[in-house]
Amino acid sequence: MKLLKTLAPAAALIALPSLGLAQDGPTPGVNASTDSVFIFNSLLFLIGGFLVFWMAAGFAMLEAGLVRSKNVTMQLTKNVALFSLAAIFYYLIGYNLMYPLGTWSVEGVLSGVWGPGVLEAVGVTADAADDYSYASTGSDFFFQLMFCATTASIVSGTLAERIKLWPFLIFTIILTAIIYPLQASWKWGGGFLDEAGFLDFAGSTVVHSVGGWAALTGAIILGPRIGKYKDGRVTPIPGSNLTLATLGTFILWLGWFGFNGGSQLAMGTVGDVADVSRIFANTNTAAAGGAIAALITSQLLFKKPDLTMILNGALAGLVSITAEPLTPSLGAATLIGAVGGVIVVFAIPFMDKLKIDDVVGAIPVHLICGIWGTIAVVFTNSDASIGTQLYSIVVVGVFTVVASAVVWFILKAIMGLRVDEETEINGLDMAELGMEAYPEFSKG
Amino acid sequence: MKLLKTLAPAAALIALPSLGLAQDGPTPGVNASTDSVFIFNSLLFLIGGFLVFWMAAGFAMLEAGLVRSKNVTMQLTKNVALFSLAAIFYYLIGYNLMYPLGTWSVEGVLSGVWGPGVLEAVGVTADAADDYSYASTGSDFFFQLMFCATTASIVSGTLAERIKLWPFLIFTIILTAIIYPLQASWKWGGGFLDEAGFLDFAGSTVVHSVGGWAALTGAIILGPRIGKYKDGRVTPIPGSNLTLATLGTFILWLGWFGFNGGSQLAMGTVGDVADVSRIFANTNTAAAGGAIAALITSQLLFKKPDLTMILNGALAGLVSITAEPLTPSLGAATLIGAVGGVIVVFAIPFMDKLKIDDVVGAIPVHLICGIWGTIAVVFTNSDASIGTQLYSIVVVGVFTVVASAVVWFILKAIMGLRVDEETEINGLDMAELGMEAYPEFSKG
Amino acid sequence: MKLLKTLAPAAALIALPSLGLAQDGPTPGVNASTDSVFIFNSLLFLIGGFLVFWMAAGFAMLEAGLVRSKNVTMQLTKNVALFSLAAIFYYLIGYNLMYPLGTWSVEGVLSGVWGPGVLEAVGVTADAADDYSYASTGSDFFFQLMFCATTASIVSGTLAERIKLWPFLIFTIILTAIIYPLQASWKWGGGFLDEAGFLDFAGSTVVHSVGGWAALTGAIILGPRIGKYKDGRVTPIPGSNLTLATLGTFILWLGWFGFNGGSQLAMGTVGDVADVSRIFANTNTAAAGGAIAALITSQLLFKKPDLTMILNGALAGLVSITAEPLTPSLGAATLIGAVGGVIVVFAIPFMDKLKIDDVVGAIPVHLICGIWGTIAVVFTNSDASIGTQLYSIVVVGVFTVVASAVVWFILKAIMGLRVDEETEINGLDMAELGMEAYPEFSKG
Repeated sequence: MKLLKTLAPAAALIALPSLGLAQDGPTPGVNASTDSVFIFNSLLFLIGGFLVFWMAAGFAMLEAGLVRSKNVTMQLTKNVALFSLAAIFYYLIGYNLMYPLGTWSVEGVLSGVWGPGVLEAVGVTADAADDYSYASTGSDFFFQLMFCATTASIVSGTLAERIKLWPFLIFTIILTAIIYPLQASWKWGGGFLDEAGFLDFAGSTVVHSVGGWAALTGAIILGPRIGKYKDGRVTPIPGSNLTLATLGTFILWLGWFGFNGGSQLAMGTVGDVADVSRIFANTNTAAAGGAIAALITSQLLFKKPDLTMILNGALAGLVSITAEPLTPSLGAATLIGAVGGVIVVFAIPFMDKLKIDDVVGAIPVHLICGIWGTIAVVFTNSDASIGTQLYSIVVVGVFTVVASAVVWFILKAIMGLRVDEETEINGLDMAELGMEAYPEFSKG
Repeated sequence: MKLLKTLAPAAALIALPSLGLAQDGPTPGVNASTDSVFIFNSLLFLIGGFLVFWMAAGFAMLEAGLVRSKNVTMQLTKNVALFSLAAIFYYLIGYNLMYPLGTWSVEGVLSGVWGPGVLEAVGVTADAADDYSYASTGSDFFFQLMFCATTASIVSGTLAERIKLWPFLIFTIILTAIIYPLQASWKWGGGFLDEAGFLDFAGSTVVHSVGGWAALTGAIILGPRIGKYKDGRVTPIPGSNLTLATLGTFILWLGWFGFNGGSQLAMGTVGDVADVSRIFANTNTAAAGGAIAALITSQLLFKKPDLTMILNGALAGLVSITAEPLTPSLGAATLIGAVGGVIVVFAIPFMDKLKIDDVVGAIPVHLICGIWGTIAVVFTNSDASIGTQLYSIVVVGVFTVVASAVVWFILKAIMGLRVDEETEINGLDMAELGMEAYPEFSKG
Repeated sequence: MKLLKTLAPAAALIALPSLGLAQDGPTPGVNASTDSVFIFNSLLFLIGGFLVFWMAAGFAMLEAGLVRSKNVTMQLTKNVALFSLAAIFYYLIGYNLMYPLGTWSVEGVLSGVWGPGVLEAVGVTADAADDYSYASTGSDFFFQLMFCATTASIVSGTLAERIKLWPFLIFTIILTAIIYPLQASWKWGGGFLDEAGFLDFAGSTVVHSVGGWAALTGAIILGPRIGKYKDGRVTPIPGSNLTLATLGTFILWLGWFGFNGGSQLAMGTVGDVADVSRIFANTNTAAAGGAIAALITSQLLFKKPDLTMILNGALAGLVSITAEPLTPSLGAATLIGAVGGVIVVFAIPFMDKLKIDDVVGAIPVHLICGIWGTIAVVFTNSDASIGTQLYSIVVVGVFTVVASAVVWFILKAIMGLRVDEETEINGLDMAELGMEAYPEFSKG
């Protein structure tokens, strides 16, 4: 999302932002055209939003496929619950915190629960639309919400197979209500990082690295799974279902067209829809580049192609292009993605060297490639400054690590983060939920 | 779908309905804008339609995940076949029955098979479009068809693991050709329930309760599975694959944006697209509310969160908001969904007390929450009258139960509904289809 | 895709093609409307493109479900890799080869890697858009790419469980860089088949039969799986997961709305969006007809319905309607699809009689029904000549078989196509990749 969000209702008296669209927009004053621009922009948010929603299913499938079958029900439960909590708490608190235009207050939040909240009135007329000539606030809210939920989805995979349900869900609430929106406001709410010239089109840093930092912090505090690092050796723990992991990757790839394409925030002009088209093409080729780079790298490194590396390579390509999916050529986008694919193949074993147990590889994919993608902006976008990019990466990282660590430690002190040893060995599904994911299939 | 369907070709001489859109539409007479409205509305039907199509896959995955592995192939076969039959018979009979504008006749149906049928001519010009200024009839048909198919999908889950394939498919034909369209015409065809002021935006009653009533009637006539209620106790029969059940739920959740959003029936004006946006946001938050309410309720009630309850809670939230996804605020929508989520957690065990064996929980989700959603309209839409809502629920319920019972009893008399005991115990897959869904995996 | 692709940048001086859209387009000179047409057309490509992208996941799931579990990881690896390679090589070579407008050269390709390539500039103004008044080149490229990838996806299923990874991937590169684009240019690039009057709306021949011919050639050269045809008998080798196969079919069905609907190539006028609507409705009903025809035929022929036949029947219906999804009535479309459904039920055992081992049935579905669909154009489109259709089928077939055979034989000579006997018996996953798809589940 390269631009500030449109003004909220309470700020409607302020002059409309030009949003960088003016140069190729329709002549002002032609109402029919303005209608079309409004509809096209809203439609982009709706399509983009449902595609990003679909990523929640992608994370659920990817993670269910990469954990052992004794922990699958738990992983599914976490994924459905975290999305639902994100939806509710981003609405209750996060959205207003992210775009703080003087309207946020405890009273406002409370009244928003029952009042019209962030949505426009039913059957609004053109003149009364909150930001007529841009897009409906409902569609914007729907789209923004999905980004917040994505951030939370990133965390669950890393911490799988050992974290208790409730502390994880409480962390999700804090993450989606406060941590994500607060730092997102620094860029997308027009805050100090935006003013400093930080560029992060669809959120390599704002979404993916934040999820990654929160996951990293949690992984360090939580510690590795029992048996993962024993006697100085790394024990591979294969996932239970690679078909689901592949399905999850395809779902995420599909959803990413909405994630990056929708972040153009407008398609009501020739220039905007051409830009959205560029973004779709670049997003796809970056994922392809990441997958093929991981295929070749894993073949060279391990003498055998590694499917989980290829899947993570595709995701790495997607994260890498997310900070700037618009300005690269197809070739540059492929290369940016390919570098991401190479990074994960090296970073995943490296995490094991550090004894940081990341069950699905989310830290290499979302954090390390999120950083890479944010830096890579400077190669194709002359507005970007490497200093500002690095500064912003650090600021967001320090904030997220500190805030996450505080929350994780408080949760650890109050209720404990980790299931007991017996539960972890027997699997969280039976002990915590009393329900197996595949009750009829015997374990090998 | 709050409004009457647009006029059919034969009624083109009648003045165009204002459709409640006029207040914020473009100035009449500006042709270019009228084109845009027509295209936007048609596009909404196409996008909404393919999203609701996707729900057929969602039901298939949900049901395949919640039956035992010995019955999975049969459940998949039923789901693919029922959608296909719905597509064919809604086209042959149902669509014309639902919108009976003087054009329906045996001759018309028969000639429609080979003739141009319900579609506009190829490469129609603007002036010749069947209902120029509204939407293409092809897109409308495509969208409506998916609602009919959804109704049929609801039935298959409840009756799983014991009903024979062919009587089930014949019931599906009657349901989609006659029962669904006939009662749908009372509301959406401009019939007596619509005239009475009944409000059911996207079909909590017209779609979901009808599927639920048909399932309930079938479940009572068919009886429970062998061993489900033995010696006065309820034996839990866990589903074979909760990952698939979760995937199915996410698919349904995604499809529901089309289901409810498309039911605005228009997005060619600022007001309509803002309304569609409200509906997307409300639909999402209702599902989230349902999931979290079921999570908390199952935690309190059973001391452990129950994933199948959470999934059904999300679906319950979606059904609950379907009768009125437009007028609620985000807070009200969350609560309406949450009440649905609480309902299913109590209703699913309650069905067992009544010894009604509903394999996937479709009756609580679609029937009971369909009723709740229809009643809940009165809380946020001042046009709704509780008396009319209740009256309509009862009328549709009595009709569907009676019509379904007649069909089920005739099928029982002619060909029998239920597989024999040995087949049921060994699983329908091998006995009826000679094909296992997971032939390589041993049963635990 | 009935029409020629729009002109490429280098040909911008040539007069704009009328594209058959003019009759119902907006009045020339009204800029706002022209903008809308451009945006609507681009949006059709983007939506169609992401739907066809989704088909890649459908093929992956279908094939993973129909191979034995010991080969699932390999099948998934092939599917992710083939899509990624298609994306890269269609961009590097194929796209320019398919639409050779004087701009293609080794230098151009090489510079395209790093330069702006096929995309329009960022933030293009209306006047500078490559083909203003039609659609963005980025959206067109994105859409076209997905068709090329689909062709490659078809091949992988047939050759499963015995072909080595790398020769398969190298074949994919040749197919997507050269074979597919070259023959596609004969029709969709305005080549000699197009000039001869060949009609193939969305590619029954250009996409599906080409994939089918390449698969057939590979299957003959590769030979059947060990044990498939032993002692003169056919040994059925059931797929490991019919739920995934069903999911794959639903995904393909969904994606096909984009495949056929997007091939209208325009939705910026009343006539075009009405045509897209016809196509959606016809595509759906053809799939339904194919599924039901296969259900009935398999019931009559084998006394038991066969789920894999029903799934292939739905796909057969989809392939059959692909050459002409626009002109048929709903009834005719249903029948065209139904004939496809009957064909596969006979063709799949017939392939076994010929000892051609097609693991997933892709040759009957994509090749035989591709031919049927191409012929069926003459029944509903009076512009089609049976002679030209047959001639084009043969030309494309001969070219694809010869070109594929050359590549397969070269690959066989250089590196061998087939895994060794022990690897095939033990499964490709452990021997070639060292990774099982379902490591925890014991084999039955």
